[in-house]
Amino acid sequence: MSTAPSTPAKYDVVGVGNALVDVISHADDGFIAQYELVKGSMTLVDTDRALFLYRALGSAVEMSGGSAANTMTGVASLGGTAAYIGKVSADELGDVFGHDLRAVGVQFRPGRPDHETPTGRCIIVVTPDAERTMNTYLGVSSLLCATDIDEATVAAGKVLYMEGYLFDRDEAKAAFRRAAAVAHANGRQVSLTLSDSFCVDRHRDDFRSLVTDEVDILFGNRDELTALYEVESFDEAVRCVQRDCHLAVITVGSEGCYVITRDEVLTAPAEPVDHVLDTTGAGDLFAAGFLFGYTRDLHLLECARLGAIAAAEVISHVGPRPLVELKSLIS
Amino acid sequence: MSTAPSTPAKYDVVGVGNALVDVISHADDGFIAQYELVKGSMTLVDTDRALFLYRALGSAVEMSGGSAANTMTGVASLGGTAAYIGKVSADELGDVFGHDLRAVGVQFRPGRPDHETPTGRCIIVVTPDAERTMNTYLGVSSLLCATDIDEATVAAGKVLYMEGYLFDRDEAKAAFRRAAAVAHANGRQVSLTLSDSFCVDRHRDDFRSLVTDEVDILFGNRDELTALYEVESFDEAVRCVQRDCHLAVITVGSEGCYVITRDEVLTAPAEPVDHVLDTTGAGDLFAAGFLFGYTRDLHLLECARLGAIAAAEVISHVGPRPLVELKSLIS
Repeated sequence: MSTAPSTPAKYDVVGVGNALVDVISHADDGFIAQYELVKGSMTLVDTDRALFLYRALGSAVEMSGGSAANTMTGVASLGGTAAYIGKVSADELGDVFGHDLRAVGVQFRPGRPDHETPTGRCIIVVTPDAERTMNTYLGVSSLLCATDIDEATVAAGKVLYMEGYLFDRDEAKAAFRRAAAVAHANGRQVSLTLSDSFCVDRHRDDFRSLVTDEVDILFGNRDELTALYEVESFDEAVRCVQRDCHLAVITVGSEGCYVITRDEVLTAPAEPVDHVLDTTGAGDLFAAGFLFGYTRDLHLLECARLGAIAAAEVISHVGPRPLVELKSLIS
Repeated sequence: MSTAPSTPAKYDVVGVGNALVDVISHADDGFIAQYELVKGSMTLVDTDRALFLYRALGSAVEMSGGSAANTMTGVASLGGTAAYIGKVSADELGDVFGHDLRAVGVQFRPGRPDHETPTGRCIIVVTPDAERTMNTYLGVSSLLCATDIDEATVAAGKVLYMEGYLFDRDEAKAAFRRAAAVAHANGRQVSLTLSDSFCVDRHRDDFRSLVTDEVDILFGNRDELTALYEVESFDEAVRCVQRDCHLAVITVGSEGCYVITRDEVLTAPAEPVDHVLDTTGAGDLFAAGFLFGYTRDLHLLECARLGAIAAAEVISHVGPRPLVELKSLIS
């Protein structure tokens, strides 16, 4: 699918995603039921619903988030080089988002500035079982389009990493296709995370054609993979993805993950965690660890081990990004 | 000093203070030295310095803060009733600040709206020893003036609680005096926290006259009390405050506190904490626990015990406000 790289890569990974600030609060299952939230999933909400939920919410903490952005901070925290493409507004939360990427050394390419639409935010309700339920008001992040893709940045990354959440908008799908084309034209690899099984359900055909046409490395969990191929059994989904992708990495929560190549299916364990506090960012940080290893040509099982270590760190505290330098955990 | 209350109180405590959103980040002592910060204290910074420090800072988390506002959330978390007077702007951080008060049941009286000056923020650097170093950009909070004081709210609180940080501005001093006059005219008590020994140094004369004229209950730590009276020994400071105030409650970190009345000096222990993570909010929450007990006519030593419990909760995690319902810790 790719030509040989023409120039050395400046970045290990270049991420593209919805640039969001997380608004994190704790509530019990009664709150989830009362406000008819879909536990464990990501739901898109409009301004009114976002305001309604926010008013109902207990006191909250604001932290930069966004799936692919979390992954890029993980890559940087491990000692890798990363850049991120996503749209924020010229407002306070946009400043926060940009600061928190730059502060950990991620190059931020925010696209054209926008002053009209506020920076997107994701209202995250963490229940006592550490599960997170997300309600996303996309704001200006939803205006990302093909012309916002900084092609020089994409061309300079060994691996392009895109989040499936972007698929909820046609303009972003076009941005996706554009970024993938630029990456491949420069001999880079293209990876995608499926993000959410409901999102996969909403856009199955588009996901399927993108995976077939453009994706070299697919990330997701078991539910997302079976949703993608509309099959009952995981084994069947594995056969499908082996046909479509060079490599698929499928997580199964505390059971670990499957690393699926054309020829074989490897399994790797999760990293034990004493007390899981908040699963937000688990998949994002797993991908960070895996890609950090992958871009260093480590064995696939070693990549999975690094992913497990990064994921274990992020689920052991509240918030979607590492609190310690991940580099210190892998030496 | 007070007349008898004419009507039943609607609130246990009414707080007045600088309405700030905290921007919390971790750094080592090298950062403190490099940026010439005054460790453990609060320094006022202008816009340029705030931006400079923020750019230098690692990734951060945004949480509502403000000393007296933290105290009011503590009172509410213990099951008491509280209101808060302080100025925010019509911006995103102002929305966050208001939400986080209302979410825990504190009545928020923000004064006249302002759209020109942004909501204030406090850049807090937490070092590995759990000490916090604060750099405050006051923003719109510094525009609080006498006409912003909702007199009906002050009149309806058993105890008025004001923070010494407000003393850095003349308009706020006038607001202070106004609020104290309203409280006393309605038979309520007036309390003040000294906030910071550097702040006391800057405004010693004003603090002294306010304490003599208006303050029934004085909160502070040992350094702040000796700074107030410019004396070498704590014993001498105790004799001074006994002359000026009905009641003084002076904390001494992990050693506990002194409860000083005209006639006696009681001591009470701190609550043991396994692992102190961030001392931000310790004094604020101590005052919350104490005032919660005080407004229920509990014994002064029981008030001190409640203060110690509330302070212990807030220093055992990052952030200036309780993460659990304090009510559950005192039953």
